[in-house]
Amino acid sequence: MQNLIPQIPSLQNPALSAALQRRIDGKTKPLGALGHLERLMLRIGLILGSETPALREPQLMVFAGDHGLARRGVSAYPSDVTWQMVENFLAGGAAVSVLARQHGLKLTVVDAGVAHDFAPRAGLLIAKIAAGTADSAEQPAMTTDQCATAIAAGKTLLARQPGNALLLGEMGIGNTSSAALLLARLQNLAVERCTGRGTGLDDAGLQRKLDTLGAVLQRHAQATEPLQALAAFGGFEIAMMVGAVLQAALERRVIVVDGFIASAAVLVAAALQPAVLERCVFAHRSEESGHRLMLEALGAEPLLDLGLRLGEGSGAALAWPLLSSACLILSEMASFESAGVSQQA
Amino acid sequence: MQNLIPQIPSLQNPALSAALQRRIDGKTKPLGALGHLERLMLRIGLILGSETPALREPQLMVFAGDHGLARRGVSAYPSDVTWQMVENFLAGGAAVSVLARQHGLKLTVVDAGVAHDFAPRAGLLIAKIAAGTADSAEQPAMTTDQCATAIAAGKTLLARQPGNALLLGEMGIGNTSSAALLLARLQNLAVERCTGRGTGLDDAGLQRKLDTLGAVLQRHAQATEPLQALAAFGGFEIAMMVGAVLQAALERRVIVVDGFIASAAVLVAAALQPAVLERCVFAHRSEESGHRLMLEALGAEPLLDLGLRLGEGSGAALAWPLLSSACLILSEMASFESAGVSQQA
Repeated sequence: MQNLIPQIPSLQNPALSAALQRRIDGKTKPLGALGHLERLMLRIGLILGSETPALREPQLMVFAGDHGLARRGVSAYPSDVTWQMVENFLAGGAAVSVLARQHGLKLTVVDAGVAHDFAPRAGLLIAKIAAGTADSAEQPAMTTDQCATAIAAGKTLLARQPGNALLLGEMGIGNTSSAALLLARLQNLAVERCTGRGTGLDDAGLQRKLDTLGAVLQRHAQATEPLQALAAFGGFEIAMMVGAVLQAALERRVIVVDGFIASAAVLVAAALQPAVLERCVFAHRSEESGHRLMLEALGAEPLLDLGLRLGEGSGAALAWPLLSSACLILSEMASFESAGVSQQA
Repeated sequence: MQNLIPQIPSLQNPALSAALQRRIDGKTKPLGALGHLERLMLRIGLILGSETPALREPQLMVFAGDHGLARRGVSAYPSDVTWQMVENFLAGGAAVSVLARQHGLKLTVVDAGVAHDFAPRAGLLIAKIAAGTADSAEQPAMTTDQCATAIAAGKTLLARQPGNALLLGEMGIGNTSSAALLLARLQNLAVERCTGRGTGLDDAGLQRKLDTLGAVLQRHAQATEPLQALAAFGGFEIAMMVGAVLQAALERRVIVVDGFIASAAVLVAAALQPAVLERCVFAHRSEESGHRLMLEALGAEPLLDLGLRLGEGSGAALAWPLLSSACLILSEMASFESAGVSQQA
């Protein structure tokens, strides 16, 4: 386990922070007038260790997996939609496919544990741990070994990708349940506060989901450590994201976090190595009700608040141009001095 | 005046709305899962009259003007910053210059009434009404004739631009005062609620601004009609934006509204022709305190909320990729049927 979870050092660098702040304050605009974008400039500058950071070869990785718990009707959609949507991602027809094309993001789909055999092809990495997790209402979603294997695979896959930015995406019918369970357990919150309608449950479906998740939490009452909780509640795609996040953090890549499920992977990774959070940019606040609590728990300030609840990395892709803007402004925008503009009286 | 203000018809089109909604609902995603982006798709589709609208040759027009009231210390910056920033826009060094390059927006600066003589050059349209408005604490900021001339110029300038989208930007030291005055008068709100720190006034400066604006409102107590208020409070850049907005609305262009000052122009235009609002996309909620009230008055739902308070069209430019995404998703994203994905159970 020592080797599984890398030590992530803090990025704190008072000299660079001060230099970045001076650079931002010297730009031809009132102090602080670019608001959140200025905090984004500071963050990316610190991650990439530069006053003029440049984002290179951004990788949008969509981790997909199936969930044993899905048979209990915790989702409005059948599990088959997981593999069908993977095919849709690869065919270029999903929302995230369109957005990745728009913004020049390299899209890779990772089969972390889909209950389907895919034909190999470009853009698909097959790293299947098993054909879906076990039903966490009956047993842990994955064994300790499976959990470690998934995390290790996430690290390895990420390490092979070029570039200095990772955008997280995921697909897995039933995975808002895993995310809600991880949030409830790791933050010690009532499951009702953590659980939402996912892809669109009606009231009866939501009640069924709440009852199911309450029982799952009780069955795994002893799974209190981050890795225990991850194994108990799943899924494979979340565990693999945890590995990818840890590796990306170690390599000082910018990690663009999508919605509720991607944030759950970050919640686990940050519980293991808190300095992971210094590498994260939170793309948006999802409409899924637990996400607000999750973001609060992570001290996160999301860039967008558009009522999205799609996953796939769609929110991360939508926010991407704002990261590019932050870097371009740092590099290209004139200073009061260079432009000959009068400063505040 | 009949000829000055065109009749803007409503875009309501139940058949097209229904077709757009069916198209959106048929995409491979849970119903409503793209949140605000789906409402944006509907809006752009209705404006451009298509189920697969395509944005062409977007024009970012920055209207610049000076304000007689600025001599009373209502801004943290001297009036010279207006022309200096125009030079900065044209030299490519301002925030909006960087963002326009990033997103392929054609940037044009319009001298609506800057107190400076610019050398003619590419990207600059000189349509100066006068070298700054009069001091509205002493007399109307502009005469009725000047106001009409500015509106007519905005219409003409816009009509000559190609494309089907207008992004509004502005520059004018002192123009948060005009916007606050227009909001207070046209919405019958206390000036204290409409007035903020602009480019960064301290507490004493804010109090001075409040006292000044209170007196200006009293002096022009009879200026209650939209065009009277516009003439009384200025500025030339706002009046010219009113004309551009009316013309863009008439031509069914998508109008991307920036912050507090651009919204004030829309407030005036919508008071004259309410259907203007059906053509508007509100880019962001500014940090300038009156903007929240302004957006509420306009029934607007802004795309971004990043604490920006820069103007220049910077918020409009930052939001632009979301409009492109909305169109691309309508055109390129697969349907459940075309992708062979199972629908909700």
